[in-house]
Amino acid sequence: MDPVRFPDDLIIPDASGTLLLVVLDGVGGLPHPDTGLTELETARIPNLDGLAARSSLGMLLPVAPGVTPGSGPGHLALFGYDPTTNLIGRGVLSALGVGFELRPGDAAVRLNLASLDGEGRILDRRAGRPSDQEARQVVERLQAGLEAVPIGSGEVELSLIHEKEHRMVLIFRGEGLEAEISDTDPQQTGVRPLEARALRPGSRPTAELFAGFEARVREILANEERINGVLARGFARYDGFPSLKDRFGLSGVAIARYPMYRGVARLVGMEAERRPGSDEESLEALEASFGEVDFHFLHFKAPDALGEDGDFGGKVRSLEEIDRLVPRLVALDPDVLIVTGDHSTPSTLGAHSWHHVPLLLHSKWARPTGKAFREDVCRSGDLGSVRSCDLMSLALAHAGRLAKFGA
Amino acid sequence: MDPVRFPDDLIIPDASGTLLLVVLDGVGGLPHPDTGLTELETARIPNLDGLAARSSLGMLLPVAPGVTPGSGPGHLALFGYDPTTNLIGRGVLSALGVGFELRPGDAAVRLNLASLDGEGRILDRRAGRPSDQEARQVVERLQAGLEAVPIGSGEVELSLIHEKEHRMVLIFRGEGLEAEISDTDPQQTGVRPLEARALRPGSRPTAELFAGFEARVREILANEERINGVLARGFARYDGFPSLKDRFGLSGVAIARYPMYRGVARLVGMEAERRPGSDEESLEALEASFGEVDFHFLHFKAPDALGEDGDFGGKVRSLEEIDRLVPRLVALDPDVLIVTGDHSTPSTLGAHSWHHVPLLLHSKWARPTGKAFREDVCRSGDLGSVRSCDLMSLALAHAGRLAKFGA
Repeated sequence: MDPVRFPDDLIIPDASGTLLLVVLDGVGGLPHPDTGLTELETARIPNLDGLAARSSLGMLLPVAPGVTPGSGPGHLALFGYDPTTNLIGRGVLSALGVGFELRPGDAAVRLNLASLDGEGRILDRRAGRPSDQEARQVVERLQAGLEAVPIGSGEVELSLIHEKEHRMVLIFRGEGLEAEISDTDPQQTGVRPLEARALRPGSRPTAELFAGFEARVREILANEERINGVLARGFARYDGFPSLKDRFGLSGVAIARYPMYRGVARLVGMEAERRPGSDEESLEALEASFGEVDFHFLHFKAPDALGEDGDFGGKVRSLEEIDRLVPRLVALDPDVLIVTGDHSTPSTLGAHSWHHVPLLLHSKWARPTGKAFREDVCRSGDLGSVRSCDLMSLALAHAGRLAKFGA
Repeated sequence: MDPVRFPDDLIIPDASGTLLLVVLDGVGGLPHPDTGLTELETARIPNLDGLAARSSLGMLLPVAPGVTPGSGPGHLALFGYDPTTNLIGRGVLSALGVGFELRPGDAAVRLNLASLDGEGRILDRRAGRPSDQEARQVVERLQAGLEAVPIGSGEVELSLIHEKEHRMVLIFRGEGLEAEISDTDPQQTGVRPLEARALRPGSRPTAELFAGFEARVREILANEERINGVLARGFARYDGFPSLKDRFGLSGVAIARYPMYRGVARLVGMEAERRPGSDEESLEALEASFGEVDFHFLHFKAPDALGEDGDFGGKVRSLEEIDRLVPRLVALDPDVLIVTGDHSTPSTLGAHSWHHVPLLLHSKWARPTGKAFREDVCRSGDLGSVRSCDLMSLALAHAGRLAKFGA
């Protein structure tokens, strides 16, 4: 654990500046082949542009040059935690995301429902993306099967929880659990799931429990055509985590529609009870509670989802829709308002990428350099290129929450 | 040893993207006093400019702010090895450069033939730059002298090998060799060579062997007017090195006219058999073998040599000549094509320098920002300022060879 060290020592305990971090997931892009403009450079976003003209601009480097972050590391970095030293598995993030109250020592793994053929080979790694309702029924059958006959000796308690669509999380609670275990998801179709191998001897009991669970799943779903298997990714043990309060003196709240993002927020001690069903509901939740805490995290998923779908026009429109909500964010008058992303998701690539992410930081101490929120303008901004995990220091400084270093 | 850690874990083992790294040695420059333009800003290089318009641009920081790299550290950094933690002496690089099959535990030092006066003071640190043929005859006499009567007890084997012109390398092979020894080259004329001092007690035996060797050289060349002494730089022990294959999953080939650059390439596991006699032959060698390996390193020496000579116009012309070869590089269609340098060699300074180096990275995932390959345009490029040792991560990412970090 090597958090950003300076802010820890420099925190002004009784400071009162409010912070609002708005994450446009996957906002950064690549040029459209016809126009040479990125999604953000294409979108009509007058409110963000107006805000940019009164803000410091820059580009964020999410993790390290060339490194494409997953959502967990991408957000941890934005919250001021260096993801290269604060490693955490997807399983733990998913468990936190569904609201499971993890205790240090618990282990967790993320599961996909999958379709297997008669020979056990993978036909679809996401079982045809079942609806929440359909998937929930399957999960309930599996839960009932687990309750009827415990896996193993019964000393380790297994909890299976539906996350969203084909995604579930399995949590192990018991003594001495270790979770250095390889994924069973081979990330391709036409082959059998891999074996969950213990990468250290201490992880064998957990791996054996998982093998028992997997066999039970196949048994229960034996007669199903489409949803009849599971694939595991990101076995991880939860060992606790220093909170935003401990590190930066910040109480925090997360407003996010998807469990994953509430999970990573909860990991660093934010309250994340609200479960808005739309971006409009997210805004209403923020407006209803703004100022009750120091740090507000608002998450918009659409730019990433549409970027991953390779839908350039759709991503452009999602940015334009978010732009219409911006005046309401400004009206809340936070001392620091940041708009950025956890990583780029270029539509032409159709996946997360390593490219720098545009950054806007609005505060009365800003040093404006341009009149638009877009890659080409942010690139030459006052903040230059900043590692995402250094953003929190900048935010705290602009909020009047950091003391001078040295007399 | 602290290599870039992430890529090691994130390497996709069966990825197939090809990489071509073109090093224009010493490419970065300083403004000409009359025009205010650097060598690169002066040169007519339409092919590099056209490539730049389809590439991500930036500036490389070779080692650290203000640090002028030698050729060894400059290239190690480009290959993804932090030269501040992967220290290696010039002697070892030279030994590898002449094709000597170094074993871990060997020590080596680079030597210049020099001219001394009757009092032992240095008249010319390069002995008037003898031709290869002339120098080779001197080296043969010295080798014969070494064979006739071994230096010291004979338990350590000394090998003297001619490199190029006035340059030789001396290799020590035996048990328990250490090589923390100061240079004898005082880097000026009119003074005597310095003593080779052991900087740690363990290096004393090697320093004493070298003193014996030096005395033997003076004896053998006692009656020579011009070539009658040696100057030593860069004592170093070779301890082995992780390869590009081990670290990045890359097989590699180096195409370079000068032994030094083949040496540093061989150090990281590249094949470096070819010895082209001209830039045209380098191109032909590249074309003949392109795609047989993953990573191709092509080295052009002229910009550095002419920069060191203080020949501004000559360096400009060398860049224009290289530019004419660029269409053939593009025609090879590597997934990632990088053009940059290992350091700057401004003609006005007449030496390597610490200044940032222009960087061009061409790939279908580039984010273009300008239409020319020159300092003023690269400075505001999308890649910003990147440490040279982080270039490999960027290259691997653009080649589709790095997995996502965290789910």
